[in-house]
Amino acid sequence: MKTFELWFDYSSPYSYLASTQVEALAARTGATLVWRPFLLGGLFKLIEGPDVPMNTWPAAKRLHAVRDMERWAEAYGVPFRFPARFPMSTLTALRVALSAPEHLVPWTHAVYRAYWAEDRDISDPAELARIAESVGLPADILARTGDPAVKEALKAVTLEARDKGLFGAPSFVVGDLVFWGQDRLCFVEKALAGWRPRSG
Amino acid sequence: MKTFELWFDYSSPYSYLASTQVEALAARTGATLVWRPFLLGGLFKLIEGPDVPMNTWPAAKRLHAVRDMERWAEAYGVPFRFPARFPMSTLTALRVALSAPEHLVPWTHAVYRAYWAEDRDISDPAELARIAESVGLPADILARTGDPAVKEALKAVTLEARDKGLFGAPSFVVGDLVFWGQDRLCFVEKALAGWRPRSG
Repeated sequence: MKTFELWFDYSSPYSYLASTQVEALAARTGATLVWRPFLLGGLFKLIEGPDVPMNTWPAAKRLHAVRDMERWAEAYGVPFRFPARFPMSTLTALRVALSAPEHLVPWTHAVYRAYWAEDRDISDPAELARIAESVGLPADILARTGDPAVKEALKAVTLEARDKGLFGAPSFVVGDLVFWGQDRLCFVEKALAGWRPRSG
Repeated sequence: MKTFELWFDYSSPYSYLASTQVEALAARTGATLVWRPFLLGGLFKLIEGPDVPMNTWPAAKRLHAVRDMERWAEAYGVPFRFPARFPMSTLTALRVALSAPEHLVPWTHAVYRAYWAEDRDISDPAELARIAESVGLPADILARTGDPAVKEALKAVTLEARDKGLFGAPSFVVGDLVFWGQDRLCFVEKALAGWRPRSG
């Protein structure tokens, strides 16, 4: 059975864009999609990169990046609005994701929509409680994110990202191949169809 | 008449990859392609970016970037070898490009092949003289690159790049739209077919 992993954080605009495309890709290719939430800011610390790469860019590059996100959203036919609050703490939202694996996919779509289409504050527990309710999560889910085992699970998955050679999000893992960026979905699709790049 | 500009420097691997694709794109779309050589390092200074962005990246990101270039080259069916000498001074090669507009396209393909496929030193005047001869350039072309008018022309075109909002290479200009990166050729093609992104 072919499998591909989507490694993502709710803070990443291109991960949101990827999240709108991966299920159709799985359906087209017959592959199993595995959603892998992790803490992107934690990975940046582990690999000694900047906390918010975009904030280190020249102004012209930042301007182009936002236009580029809007162009992809338009090409995909999905809503997109660069949020007023950026960067955004996603620690609690990610801990919910790891606490409720059976709700991971609807939770992820709802959190992405709240932040990247509706400009809502996904670090606010009240906002997260509303999103949780909308996807049928139990009322005590936010309380559960304080569980030390959940905190440890997020740390462990972020270390796993580092150990797989990841450095950003979204990243796709197909066997031992890593592809970075929603704009590499074309390569993910080729890899799922059997492509084995000479270079690895 | 539809027109698109390719802004490039010989030092840029993704510009080399773009150079292998743009003529087919022009043929497919019936658009006129304008080759715009400029000094990428000069643009980086003007916009206060790092001299060699890749050298500021975490190791995992650099490793992925080289694999990514190799994957694109494989997908395009073109040769690619990351050169032993990187970064590379392209000042003389760019001045030749501006000195001999009637030879710009064959010169560009030959310089790209020398650096990004054959690992040759394109800052070496003797190497450049051999490349010049191979594309039928006059023997005195390298001497002409010392002409103050040629030096000024390269500065002027690099300022023009800054004024158009460019920040990297390759960049594509279609009317007032700017697209950065060889991986945005899909958007260039849509723009040449009449797409006008809502965001500009």
